[in-house]
Amino acid sequence: MLLHHATWPEVETYLKRCKGIVIPIGSTEQHGPNGLVGTDAICPEVIATEAGAEAGFLVGPTFNVGIAQHHLGFPGSMTLRPSTMIAVINDWTESLLRHGFKRIYFFNGHGGNITTISAAFAEFYAQWSLDAEPCPARLMQRNWWELPGVMDTCRTLFPVGEGSHATASEVSVTQYALPHAIKSVAMSPKIAPSGSFTDAADYRARFPDGRIGSDPSQATPEKGAQIVAVAKQALIADVAEFFEIKPAAAAAQ
Amino acid sequence: MLLHHATWPEVETYLKRCKGIVIPIGSTEQHGPNGLVGTDAICPEVIATEAGAEAGFLVGPTFNVGIAQHHLGFPGSMTLRPSTMIAVINDWTESLLRHGFKRIYFFNGHGGNITTISAAFAEFYAQWSLDAEPCPARLMQRNWWELPGVMDTCRTLFPVGEGSHATASEVSVTQYALPHAIKSVAMSPKIAPSGSFTDAADYRARFPDGRIGSDPSQATPEKGAQIVAVAKQALIADVAEFFEIKPAAAAAQ
Amino acid sequence: MLLHHATWPEVETYLKRCKGIVIPIGSTEQHGPNGLVGTDAICPEVIATEAGAEAGFLVGPTFNVGIAQHHLGFPGSMTLRPSTMIAVINDWTESLLRHGFKRIYFFNGHGGNITTISAAFAEFYAQWSLDAEPCPARLMQRNWWELPGVMDTCRTLFPVGEGSHATASEVSVTQYALPHAIKSVAMSPKIAPSGSFTDAADYRARFPDGRIGSDPSQATPEKGAQIVAVAKQALIADVAEFFEIKPAAAAAQ
Amino acid sequence: MLLHHATWPEVETYLKRCKGIVIPIGSTEQHGPNGLVGTDAICPEVIATEAGAEAGFLVGPTFNVGIAQHHLGFPGSMTLRPSTMIAVINDWTESLLRHGFKRIYFFNGHGGNITTISAAFAEFYAQWSLDAEPCPARLMQRNWWELPGVMDTCRTLFPVGEGSHATASEVSVTQYALPHAIKSVAMSPKIAPSGSFTDAADYRARFPDGRIGSDPSQATPEKGAQIVAVAKQALIADVAEFFEIKPAAAAAQ
Amino acid sequence: MLLHHATWPEVETYLKRCKGIVIPIGSTEQHGPNGLVGTDAICPEVIATEAGAEAGFLVGPTFNVGIAQHHLGFPGSMTLRPSTMIAVINDWTESLLRHGFKRIYFFNGHGGNITTISAAFAEFYAQWSLDAEPCPARLMQRNWWELPGVMDTCRTLFPVGEGSHATASEVSVTQYALPHAIKSVAMSPKIAPSGSFTDAADYRARFPDGRIGSDPSQATPEKGAQIVAVAKQALIADVAEFFEIKPAAAAAQ
Amino acid sequence: MLLHHATWPEVETYLKRCKGIVIPIGSTEQHGPNGLVGTDAICPEVIATEAGAEAGFLVGPTFNVGIAQHHLGFPGSMTLRPSTMIAVINDWTESLLRHGFKRIYFFNGHGGNITTISAAFAEFYAQWSLDAEPCPARLMQRNWWELPGVMDTCRTLFPVGEGSHATASEVSVTQYALPHAIKSVAMSPKIAPSGSFTDAADYRARFPDGRIGSDPSQATPEKGAQIVAVAKQALIADVAEFFEIKPAAAAAQ
Repeated sequence: MLLHHATWPEVETYLKRCKGIVIPIGSTEQHGPNGLVGTDAICPEVIATEAGAEAGFLVGPTFNVGIAQHHLGFPGSMTLRPSTMIAVINDWTESLLRHGFKRIYFFNGHGGNITTISAAFAEFYAQWSLDAEPCPARLMQRNWWELPGVMDTCRTLFPVGEGSHATASEVSVTQYALPHAIKSVAMSPKIAPSGSFTDAADYRARFPDGRIGSDPSQATPEKGAQIVAVAKQALIADVAEFFEIKPAAAAAQ
Repeated sequence: MLLHHATWPEVETYLKRCKGIVIPIGSTEQHGPNGLVGTDAICPEVIATEAGAEAGFLVGPTFNVGIAQHHLGFPGSMTLRPSTMIAVINDWTESLLRHGFKRIYFFNGHGGNITTISAAFAEFYAQWSLDAEPCPARLMQRNWWELPGVMDTCRTLFPVGEGSHATASEVSVTQYALPHAIKSVAMSPKIAPSGSFTDAADYRARFPDGRIGSDPSQATPEKGAQIVAVAKQALIADVAEFFEIKPAAAAAQ
Repeated sequence: MLLHHATWPEVETYLKRCKGIVIPIGSTEQHGPNGLVGTDAICPEVIATEAGAEAGFLVGPTFNVGIAQHHLGFPGSMTLRPSTMIAVINDWTESLLRHGFKRIYFFNGHGGNITTISAAFAEFYAQWSLDAEPCPARLMQRNWWELPGVMDTCRTLFPVGEGSHATASEVSVTQYALPHAIKSVAMSPKIAPSGSFTDAADYRARFPDGRIGSDPSQATPEKGAQIVAVAKQALIADVAEFFEIKPAAAAAQ
Repeated sequence: MLLHHATWPEVETYLKRCKGIVIPIGSTEQHGPNGLVGTDAICPEVIATEAGAEAGFLVGPTFNVGIAQHHLGFPGSMTLRPSTMIAVINDWTESLLRHGFKRIYFFNGHGGNITTISAAFAEFYAQWSLDAEPCPARLMQRNWWELPGVMDTCRTLFPVGEGSHATASEVSVTQYALPHAIKSVAMSPKIAPSGSFTDAADYRARFPDGRIGSDPSQATPEKGAQIVAVAKQALIADVAEFFEIKPAAAAAQ
Repeated sequence: MLLHHATWPEVETYLKRCKGIVIPIGSTEQHGPNGLVGTDAICPEVIATEAGAEAGFLVGPTFNVGIAQHHLGFPGSMTLRPSTMIAVINDWTESLLRHGFKRIYFFNGHGGNITTISAAFAEFYAQWSLDAEPCPARLMQRNWWELPGVMDTCRTLFPVGEGSHATASEVSVTQYALPHAIKSVAMSPKIAPSGSFTDAADYRARFPDGRIGSDPSQATPEKGAQIVAVAKQALIADVAEFFEIKPAAAAAQ
Repeated sequence: MLLHHATWPEVETYLKRCKGIVIPIGSTEQHGPNGLVGTDAICPEVIATEAGAEAGFLVGPTFNVGIAQHHLGFPGSMTLRPSTMIAVINDWTESLLRHGFKRIYFFNGHGGNITTISAAFAEFYAQWSLDAEPCPARLMQRNWWELPGVMDTCRTLFPVGEGSHATASEVSVTQYALPHAIKSVAMSPKIAPSGSFTDAADYRARFPDGRIGSDPSQATPEKGAQIVAVAKQALIADVAEFFEIKPAAAAAQ
């Protein structure tokens, strides 16, 4: 069930049985020669949408531009400043709290977002802590690739060249989600260099085509389907635990 | 062509022929008994996506949560504070400017966004004006219902009960875009009351089911298709003028 | 009755009979070869002052620097950033709310302010809406030239060359208000070009002497007096309706 | 010469001979039983206006709402938060710098503003200092009562009961400036208590009618005229030194 | 008793007998050829630590980077922007208020901090004043050199060349506190020039080695000990008065 | 070499041979029944000070209040909001950059700071990335307990009850650093519960005496000395690599 595809009376009804919502959160940034600029938003969105449909939990709008300052050397990449992202997450969270949501699960598709999301949570909680009031809601974030079983699947599918940016796995997931947008590009070198980075100039100098450690030419939509299937079930279980509901009960709704 | 479905080399190539981009911008807020919470984001997104595909211009990610404080009395509505939205628009715009975009067209689906978008533009230009530097980019916004021909079409399709929030037209557009999410709900009263409002409590007191002046039970996906067809052509022409390109030339790419 | 010319016990007494206040809001920016830099603040100030004196409502201090980034190419123009103006309007409004004011009427003299004032209102209401508390106050804005009858008067007085910036009408109003500051300047061309603009460099390139579409050499203090007379009565009626008081009752105080 | 009563070509001409401007800065806050809410803005405004007219320097718009949180217990008082005021002063200053002003003299009428104005100057300079660029402008502030000779005059006129808020002197200055707004109110006690304060509740508890240490029933417009005369000449000299111009030369313009 | 050297149960116990805390606040900035970059933090820290140990009051962590934009022309100087410092002081103060502290005494070592600390206090109080709630806490600041008796001692010890930045006295205090960090440097000229300044470039041009008006080569740790001894006793008395406790009672704890 | 114990000419000299600086960064928050409120600032400060002295690198002032909103249920704990901390880190970093520092190493003592420090780095780099300018400096953070060899040492010393907050190791380090501040407190239960937390109310409910998973009654200053010895050498090596200097060369200075 997608929040944006529901009416307000449907949301009102949902809130009577469940106080939880999943927010896919990603980024709009280069993903190498054959990866989509929207990869990091598409991956959590497709997994959450399928899982929400199966298990009956609510999925909110996708937070689609995140922290990608280091990718700005590549056309199409967009970033928020962390201070802006903290303000946005706070506004989204306050809005949901207003309606009685008590469990907000940010389902993340971009490593660069993790620390800012965490800082945003502390910003949100700080107001309650300073006011000496217990916060009625709990927030959590989870990276889709860290759900139980997902990394194992990815390593099995791509024993070499999975990498850490523009990975073979995430490109596969987007190929599964958007088969009409599959790009066929030869990689040179086959496996991209690895390492760390600071700002956009530094990143582009170290990783000339945008990939880090990966060979995403191995990606296929079929492999994407396998990853999504594993991630979906793991997400359902993870959300059920966080929402403190029984998966069976949720699925029955 | 969608930015998030493109690779960075594709964006780089695009920028050689065109410096313009369209950003659909909407809201996540109640739209009455049968309107989707995501209506205001879905409408500009679907029109822009079809127009971009036909005319060959680039469409960026959808800005999906806007200024909806007055709708917070209805479950599922989400808002940014205007100061937050100004910061986000600034970050998005700075990011695009960085890559050489010179025409950024915000294609708006929500009346409540208009003034904050305009304020954001002034905030962006102000830095250049204070620095006594000419700004290399031009920003504009357009509401989809104000494109030439669209309102006439809506009035013809819905001579009575078009309304001003949760309109018959916008609900039709979403039914066209998302036929699986059509909701069948009787309206009572048939046509909602009209008027102005201030905050969320005031809004809910005046408009108990969320609609203003509309009877969206008249909506059909077929009427939505007609509206989208008119809006698409008008958008192509409007964008071509703003981008200072000839539509034919763009379509030929 | 001017707030700044009253004592606090007088304000306390006023609040027992009326919870409304009018805030003139303008700009400090070039107004062409013969228009004063303070035109947009002077116009609402003089109309509000006369109306408040006649009808017995309270007029607050004039908000005299607004959104004028596009005028910064001309010496003497000053601007706030929109985010700053939102903060200021919020502080002024919170201050007035603290004393029990429930109707705050921003009487505007500058087109460039409109959207930021509106965004500021949404920022103010958002806190109440997010807190699920009804806001005890209502805010509104009105441009002086949009009061009933004013535009008709202006068009009658200046059938040609009224224009949209440094208009013949607003220059007339300032000549009425400040006869010692009337400037006699020949216009070349007689009627300035029209069009839109973005930042300061763009504005100055398009409108070399600052005017848009106007011939303010037609201005006279007598015409200004006629405009003020019409605007004053219209403002009294508009304020009375917003304050939910009867003009007669107010005038009797 | 008042900026708001000048045209932009007049400002352009002025800037060829002088790069300095005086900004009256005050507050909108209670001033006891017979003092005007606008006292702190009116005093520097009237002195600066007369001095500017005599000596030929430019006087900008009056900054009329300042730091008055401690006065909010009395109806009509308005405040900015210090962080807001810093942003506003920065925007005003950047605007003036843009036109080539190099000496900006804030002529202050409110003790509560002093530290925030100073903090705003540091905020402004900090950007230049961090950028390792010399700032082309110098900012200063001066309280009108601290100009040479003014305090002596006040003490001579009011050997007893001058006080420190709602002073006999400042009330006299406003009576001189606005003889139609003179209020006749008996003081009880004759001389108000003295002391320090923190927030609005604390202030009102300590100073029940708003005065601190003063007996402003001694005020007369004639005494105000004497004070203004002394302050005007002192301001002309002080500004001339700050602008690095000879008063005679300026007066000759 | 130092907060950072206490456990939370010890703080809990302390709060039962005293609601006050002293926060040393300084700066990290050049102090001439033989003065330490940390001088302004070290001085209040050492005095407060000794006084707190003797009199039994709590001393919090040292606020060690303040407003020093004007010193940035000299290596090692660090600054906060005033708006940042206001936010930090607010967060520190809100944290302490949360635990029941009602008297927060900022013990200052840097003239450049004074106005921003005062602005921060107004920012903090403003929220209470706007909310029409009495603030449960009182804040104050005191410069260590303005405690009764301290300036007299300094003038006696250094009748010539005390100066106003990198003073002989403050260098002496740091030599007393940190004898291993005494630097022996000849001054040229013996006494530094005096005057005012704006930004960092202006400061360095006027005061080439960083000192203002001082000859700190006169400093000795013995003189520092004398100053600290006087300041310590004066601080104990000042804090006792502010905390509304009897020094004897506090010392007995 | 401590920045605050150096003169500016010494810093100038240092910068000729090394462009790096280490900033200890901690927190002021409860550390259980026998841990000091300042533990997280003291630990990195003592290790960095000893390492800097031995290896000749510069150590800046300690950033002593961090992100501790979750500890506010315990007296004495202080927090910054993450948005404040980002602003402060930005100001500190800009200041250091101004002097030519190119490697800024934040040496962290508090797990709760990690994500906000990382967000602050992204905020800092974002300005350069958006401006399409290469940032001249690199920032990094390191937790002292993650230096090579440290965790092994801690596990060897405390095979049971090391825990994750108010750990036996960190308490030992503070006992080594401040033997006069050793507290002798019995723990009940011997080993504290483990788990996660959200805001302050939640934290206190789960961890009644503040500890998480630890038995810090095992701490001794001797064990602290061992930990510091290991950490010091590891820090010297880590800093040398980051500063791109040879440890031997640095030590020779």
